[in-house]
Amino acid sequence: MIKKVLIGILCSAAVLTLGILIGHFGITKSSGSAPSWVRDVAKDVDESLVEKFLSEVDNIQIQENLRELTKVPHMATTAGDEQTVKFMLKRWQDPESGLDQAWREEYMVYLSFPDPKNPNSVTVVTPSDAVLHTVREKEKPYTADQEDPEVGKLVYANQGKPSDYELLNRTIDLNGTIAITRYGGAGRAAKAINAAPYGIIGVLVYTDPLDINDGLMSDINETYPHSWYLPPSGVERGSFKNHYGDMLTPYLAAKEETYRIPAKNVTGIPPIPIQPIGFEDAYILICELGGEAAPSEWQGSFSCTYNFGGPGFKHTSTFNNSDVKLDIFNYEEVRSSANVMGVIRGSVEPDRYVIYGNHRDSWVHGAIDPSSGTSVMLELSRVLGKMVKQGKWRPRRSIIFGSWGAEEFGLIGSAEYTEQYFTKLSERTVAYINVDIAVFANATLRASGMPSVQNVIFTAAKQVDAPGLDSMSVYDNWIQYANKTSPAHGTIPRVGYLSGAGSDYAAFVHYLGITSMDISYTYDRSKTNARIYPAYHTAYDTFDYASKFIDPGFTSHQATGRTAGNILIRLADSLVLPLNCSDYAESLEEYLKTAIDLYQHQLKARNISMAFASAASHLDEVIHSSDLANETPLKVRMINDQLMLLDRAFLNPLAFPDKYGYRHVIWASSSAGQPTFPGLADAYDKAESSGQSNDWDKVHYHLSVLSQAIDGAAHMLLDVI
Amino acid sequence: MIKKVLIGILCSAAVLTLGILIGHFGITKSSGSAPSWVRDVAKDVDESLVEKFLSEVDNIQIQENLRELTKVPHMATTAGDEQTVKFMLKRWQDPESGLDQAWREEYMVYLSFPDPKNPNSVTVVTPSDAVLHTVREKEKPYTADQEDPEVGKLVYANQGKPSDYELLNRTIDLNGTIAITRYGGAGRAAKAINAAPYGIIGVLVYTDPLDINDGLMSDINETYPHSWYLPPSGVERGSFKNHYGDMLTPYLAAKEETYRIPAKNVTGIPPIPIQPIGFEDAYILICELGGEAAPSEWQGSFSCTYNFGGPGFKHTSTFNNSDVKLDIFNYEEVRSSANVMGVIRGSVEPDRYVIYGNHRDSWVHGAIDPSSGTSVMLELSRVLGKMVKQGKWRPRRSIIFGSWGAEEFGLIGSAEYTEQYFTKLSERTVAYINVDIAVFANATLRASGMPSVQNVIFTAAKQVDAPGLDSMSVYDNWIQYANKTSPAHGTIPRVGYLSGAGSDYAAFVHYLGITSMDISYTYDRSKTNARIYPAYHTAYDTFDYASKFIDPGFTSHQATGRTAGNILIRLADSLVLPLNCSDYAESLEEYLKTAIDLYQHQLKARNISMAFASAASHLDEVIHSSDLANETPLKVRMINDQLMLLDRAFLNPLAFPDKYGYRHVIWASSSAGQPTFPGLADAYDKAESSGQSNDWDKVHYHLSVLSQAIDGAAHMLLDVI
Repeated sequence: MIKKVLIGILCSAAVLTLGILIGHFGITKSSGSAPSWVRDVAKDVDESLVEKFLSEVDNIQIQENLRELTKVPHMATTAGDEQTVKFMLKRWQDPESGLDQAWREEYMVYLSFPDPKNPNSVTVVTPSDAVLHTVREKEKPYTADQEDPEVGKLVYANQGKPSDYELLNRTIDLNGTIAITRYGGAGRAAKAINAAPYGIIGVLVYTDPLDINDGLMSDINETYPHSWYLPPSGVERGSFKNHYGDMLTPYLAAKEETYRIPAKNVTGIPPIPIQPIGFEDAYILICELGGEAAPSEWQGSFSCTYNFGGPGFKHTSTFNNSDVKLDIFNYEEVRSSANVMGVIRGSVEPDRYVIYGNHRDSWVHGAIDPSSGTSVMLELSRVLGKMVKQGKWRPRRSIIFGSWGAEEFGLIGSAEYTEQYFTKLSERTVAYINVDIAVFANATLRASGMPSVQNVIFTAAKQVDAPGLDSMSVYDNWIQYANKTSPAHGTIPRVGYLSGAGSDYAAFVHYLGITSMDISYTYDRSKTNARIYPAYHTAYDTFDYASKFIDPGFTSHQATGRTAGNILIRLADSLVLPLNCSDYAESLEEYLKTAIDLYQHQLKARNISMAFASAASHLDEVIHSSDLANETPLKVRMINDQLMLLDRAFLNPLAFPDKYGYRHVIWASSSAGQPTFPGLADAYDKAESSGQSNDWDKVHYHLSVLSQAIDGAAHMLLDVI
Repeated sequence: MIKKVLIGILCSAAVLTLGILIGHFGITKSSGSAPSWVRDVAKDVDESLVEKFLSEVDNIQIQENLRELTKVPHMATTAGDEQTVKFMLKRWQDPESGLDQAWREEYMVYLSFPDPKNPNSVTVVTPSDAVLHTVREKEKPYTADQEDPEVGKLVYANQGKPSDYELLNRTIDLNGTIAITRYGGAGRAAKAINAAPYGIIGVLVYTDPLDINDGLMSDINETYPHSWYLPPSGVERGSFKNHYGDMLTPYLAAKEETYRIPAKNVTGIPPIPIQPIGFEDAYILICELGGEAAPSEWQGSFSCTYNFGGPGFKHTSTFNNSDVKLDIFNYEEVRSSANVMGVIRGSVEPDRYVIYGNHRDSWVHGAIDPSSGTSVMLELSRVLGKMVKQGKWRPRRSIIFGSWGAEEFGLIGSAEYTEQYFTKLSERTVAYINVDIAVFANATLRASGMPSVQNVIFTAAKQVDAPGLDSMSVYDNWIQYANKTSPAHGTIPRVGYLSGAGSDYAAFVHYLGITSMDISYTYDRSKTNARIYPAYHTAYDTFDYASKFIDPGFTSHQATGRTAGNILIRLADSLVLPLNCSDYAESLEEYLKTAIDLYQHQLKARNISMAFASAASHLDEVIHSSDLANETPLKVRMINDQLMLLDRAFLNPLAFPDKYGYRHVIWASSSAGQPTFPGLADAYDKAESSGQSNDWDKVHYHLSVLSQAIDGAAHMLLDVI
């Protein structure tokens, strides 16, 4: 009888841990005697189920999801947005979906829109206000008020970086000018924030064909619909603010009754107007500029020399002596924005969450950004839900799907969610997976995240076939495109860090300190220098564009979905969380090494991270030397909590008083541009440039913040008592 | 065979849960077949072990601990303090102690001392600087610098409350005066902080016999050593600062290498000198004061009318025209202060901590404050350690004993501990038990804490005999002295709240948001009006005083130890944490009711707490309707985490930017003096007095902070997904 049970088990499953467990009870004890949950709590990932999942993720389903999601433009809080809310809800609330629950969650958020009755305009005007040129009008219609126009001589300020304005200012009195800048180099809002101290009164921003189109710019035969390149009239939209989350309710969820700060107290927005325009207009403006020639690094693809501006236009230009006039009529309004949430309840540890999310709102049709990600999320939830519905599976931990609202206006839906459920999410969330733009291009996987997630991404990517390649895994393909050498692992694919606020992972990483990752498919950099896929944030980001030029056949969507879904299953089902603290230690060591190289004599930093590395390897050893499948589930939970809460130890709500929403002392944003600890790097930069002793005090302060955070994290990994 | 096992178990133990568990396996399954840990993880408190513990807590052992601890004065960081460090370490590191580990943990903390070579002096001086009277010198000797003396006319300012100075200011120009105040009504530092805006240049503070001695003041036969009353020369020392923790390392652990703010940037200390004196000198000063008679509520026990001061003395006084001169020579120094830590490792959930602590440092011999508490802690650790050593017991959860340093200088040792181990303690600590002064007097138990601990205190107090009373429990005795009516429980003892920073619970409550309590034995209020036991913070707080006048026979020490130890065992051993969230809901409802009564028309507060109450009763129901002993240990852990982390949801590090170290939005300190939500009450008070719209905005802001914190806490109690 015992033999039969044993043989039956060995035949029916290849899962090692489960085998050990059942074998253990089968051999040493009479079977069937322990409470039924004893087996459940020791269960690990079922690899056959992973295989089944991978085989069921379907490219055509993803394609049809995308077709549906992109039927109408769905900018946040518009009727089109509401249509996508209803679509998501219908899918997730369908009793056949297998999800346990789905609902919408509303926030009242403060957004800025162009006024349909008073469209924003950019014109070239003579001193007598005759209009010599009108920049093409672009945005969608609404209602509103009036402001005085900004009128000034035009100058060219490259990418609007602090160093750009500084250089320009050496030649030209920038006071009262309007600067035209190209995308790249500095954040959208930063281009205007950096400009204001020089007395610049307005900023234009455009996409140079050099940066997006590999230099091509003719719509006769070169740009979309002939290729993936941006047509001349394409305008890259975007959020021109520096903070994430709703601006009127800092650190509070923006519910109807929540206290709102006065609009005049809003911080993180440019003090001067900034307006995006297409390169067909930028070409006309820039090529007419007078003054000295800009340096070679400032030159773009236009068939003329990019001059600084006189300020203003050349004497020989028809625009000679003319100004540029910005009539900006944007208005602000509190609008209702919805997240759509869906849940698969965990069986063994329902109070541990794996969150998978993407925003739902677009700028126009948003086929790639964000609907490629949403199409993938819908496919994952379909396949996983079906396995639940069929009774084949229920995850060990709970899975939460989030379809965030108003991301394009500053990651608002996800930020409000983390503000509303702060403690619950902090205490229970194992990891956050973000798949926003699922496919930038179809060459290779791209992943960023805390270093502890590297391992589970690799495991998952090794099990997925690379699209369009015979018998090569996503992992093997990836390592050809982006790799690095790890002291512990040798050559491995390079996983990036999440130090910015580029998508909805920001509030999870920086505000909650939750282990997070961002997954997509992306470019072959040997084939294009495009900053991002050319139709990004323009009206050309459509189903037609996506299916013709980004991912024909949707197999890269499928590969991203398979990889991200495999990661999701592993985080949800693994007995021991597949988070590797020694990989975290390796990254901290690299940061430390850089810090020592850069700041060595000023800092006694050498003792910072050693305690962490040895604590990490200690926990690794505990994990590998224990027969955890036969241990009390509380011992497994103890280890999992150590792994889960590791990143929480890096939070310090007081470390960055000037950086809204940044509390993670390892991954906070930094302006120093050094691959090392952000607070230290920024403080050091400032102290070195000012030479003031209170700035050196700040360096010392950040060193203490950092060293105590790392020590605190190390204490989380050591024996619990 | 099964029957035998069953009968054996039923005979040997009365523990219901364990019985159910073993019965379950005994009856429905073949016994001995489940893994051994299945039984362990379901174990509940063993009542026979509690009985054994109670019987072993020994009053004579406590007495001898106290005798040893009070041999020498042991002010923080002095040689006497080091002697107590060594004594504690010797006890806890003894292999026979049963503790798994004990160690000292050093912090470099910034303290202020009097200068032995330049003792502080308070004198009455004529305009020609002839000394007419010198106030008795008191403090202990060290080394130092010099400051200019403060010289001014004396005024009497009652308790130094804002309203006292305001009233005084109506009659007298306070500019350049020195105010004498009596203890009580306002905090020590507040008496000087409140004075400074009026131009007062120094403050004296004394203990009026009315407030401490029930009016008695003669050392011929009335005061110690004839009774517990304070002799005329007794001076109540204390910390005259408003913030807790080390002043140079705010929010960071004060390790050797930690960044220290410049001393000039220290906040929370009085801007003018303040000096405590004895009532024998205060009598001489106050009874000579000129000016109008102070109101009747300002009168103390001296046999004269307390006048405001002319300012200065009566024309008829020998002090006529004289000033009071404060020569204050305190100096500051960074000194090493130690916590002594001891640990009993948990068996089933080692990563859950119950922390029990008290400070070790005194002002002089400190028999009552703090050594009564330390003597009790040593006795608890002896009895519990012995049970561990004998193999009879190991707690389910880990027990951490903390003997904190430098409490008298502002709760420094405990605060630095919470700063150093912030995340670890936040994530793992089930509760903190503080027993500082174990016995103020021997009439009745006194307890304060979060409302959720009320129930376990009651359970424990019902099992302990009241000292000196035949067959009456501590609980039954207590309810006679302090009671209230609870909607759910009827008449019950009144448990106070921990809204201040009176002892080492402060950092646990306000900074970490850990469920905490403070336990002691205290007065029969019908027999004395003493503000506190009269020798408090004076040189008369000695072993002789404690054993003759506070607790002869040490039976109240024993009762406090039995009660606190019983609570400790229950928190460490209960299967389900004995924390009652519905009692928390009841307190929140009371606070809400008060808020509505006080602020009704301005606030739409009615919807605040209902969600919490129903979430709490939901969790209660889950706990009571589940057969948790037979459930997966992860389900029990899930519920325990909901209970443990409840208070964490009330933390908001940004809610009180002006209150150092206060993050708990329910229990933060408040100046409004209303039994309701502190942030709301203070904001309302300010708005009502200023009438300014931005102050009303703050009311609205605090309402949002509060309502989102309570909602967040409610979400912790609801079904986890």
